[in-house]
Amino acid sequence: MVDFIKQETERFAIKKCVIGLSGGIDSSVAAYLTQKAVGSNNLFGLLMPYKASSKDSITDALTVANKLKIKTKVIDVTDAADALVGNGKLDNVRRGNIIARTRMIYLYDYSFEKHALVIGTGNKTELLLGYTTLYGDSASAINPLGDLYKTQVWQLAGLLKIPKNIIKKKPSADLWIGQTDEGELGFTYEFVDKFLYYLIDCRYTDEELNKLGFKRDFIKRVKHIIVRNQFKRVPPVIAKVSNRTINVDFRYNRDWKS
Amino acid sequence: MVDFIKQETERFAIKKCVIGLSGGIDSSVAAYLTQKAVGSNNLFGLLMPYKASSKDSITDALTVANKLKIKTKVIDVTDAADALVGNGKLDNVRRGNIIARTRMIYLYDYSFEKHALVIGTGNKTELLLGYTTLYGDSASAINPLGDLYKTQVWQLAGLLKIPKNIIKKKPSADLWIGQTDEGELGFTYEFVDKFLYYLIDCRYTDEELNKLGFKRDFIKRVKHIIVRNQFKRVPPVIAKVSNRTINVDFRYNRDWKS
Repeated sequence: MVDFIKQETERFAIKKCVIGLSGGIDSSVAAYLTQKAVGSNNLFGLLMPYKASSKDSITDALTVANKLKIKTKVIDVTDAADALVGNGKLDNVRRGNIIARTRMIYLYDYSFEKHALVIGTGNKTELLLGYTTLYGDSASAINPLGDLYKTQVWQLAGLLKIPKNIIKKKPSADLWIGQTDEGELGFTYEFVDKFLYYLIDCRYTDEELNKLGFKRDFIKRVKHIIVRNQFKRVPPVIAKVSNRTINVDFRYNRDWKS
Repeated sequence: MVDFIKQETERFAIKKCVIGLSGGIDSSVAAYLTQKAVGSNNLFGLLMPYKASSKDSITDALTVANKLKIKTKVIDVTDAADALVGNGKLDNVRRGNIIARTRMIYLYDYSFEKHALVIGTGNKTELLLGYTTLYGDSASAINPLGDLYKTQVWQLAGLLKIPKNIIKKKPSADLWIGQTDEGELGFTYEFVDKFLYYLIDCRYTDEELNKLGFKRDFIKRVKHIIVRNQFKRVPPVIAKVSNRTINVDFRYNRDWKS
């Protein structure tokens, strides 16, 4: 993953990287990997607390930044996010999406200012389950963690010697008080990661998954979640009307020599 | 393109569509096509003026909505966008990106409220040249226009009998006063579209393009622009570490039967 970050920064010819540091495990691991790839002077951390954010989030994010010896900036997103939320009564999901996207705007503007790449922090579990805000926390240029399940991110965090309290705290998008990932999803990461590994990586059939002990309605439900969230993993679908269409038969220009 | 919209709305099992109406040619044509596909009752137009927007923009967008007999909502994005811009002195590009992304947040929240798909309005010219804000105006679920060059959008607008003043006005992202696409790009759509057609659709070599009359430095420059903006056309690149990686060897689940 460190080599991947080195390769991609070279390919883009952009040495600097920015990362949104939430104090959670994913952005902490992504920051540790990126610091190994580009060095402390080329990595910038952006902390974007919202009024409902836990106080620990800031403390933990700053601990990570100090350990990595990287510069940070703090932007409170409350005013802008609340201006976007407006006076209407929005439910937690709509409000959460607005906050996540507000953070994207600040992070991308910061990356423009620093002439830096945005490092993604989404893991394979949340990408498959669509447990992410499109154009919000999922927005990035390159993502070193997108092929690791959440439980693998925890394992890697141990190897990287990330502070134990960051590894041990309950995963949360921190968008409203009391929110936890596992509470919202309705199952634990440990349980669903094992399932996803057999389904996706090992290509097990429903029959084989059932023999492993996964119930048929769980299999059906999670597969449905994966399909339903496909739109979050791909660019907008384009109506093909010409003989060479972007993202259909025109996608190789990244490797054009120029 | 109308069939494409019908197909995709059926595939998503979402009948309703929302579109950001700017009063410009692209969103007008996209709205005409979408209305033909899903009917007036299933299409909603969102108008999102900013303080620097031209007054004609609102008038023209409302004219389109009236002709199509679709419901509209107007949200002035000035307060939220200015809260995001803050007190720092940002150049036009950074400010423009923030406004475009603020509109995305409102449009996506509106699509959530209406349980509707966001219809994209980006054309092939701007997608190839990256003349678009990532996670801003380029954000959509499905894009009926992405395979038409700008000059083809104008031709289609004529066929659709879109009001002539919308077809005739100078294309502009309308993000600051006096902005025009062709002024910013440094060439006309007519000129670059011809070039892109031969380069992309006909796969002409530099030699062949030069024989058509395109200068070598223009060829090199536009090819460089296309490559440099590839990141706007693809999802974040994921470090491959497992044997089945999202968007590398796992991308077919959209067609899983569920």
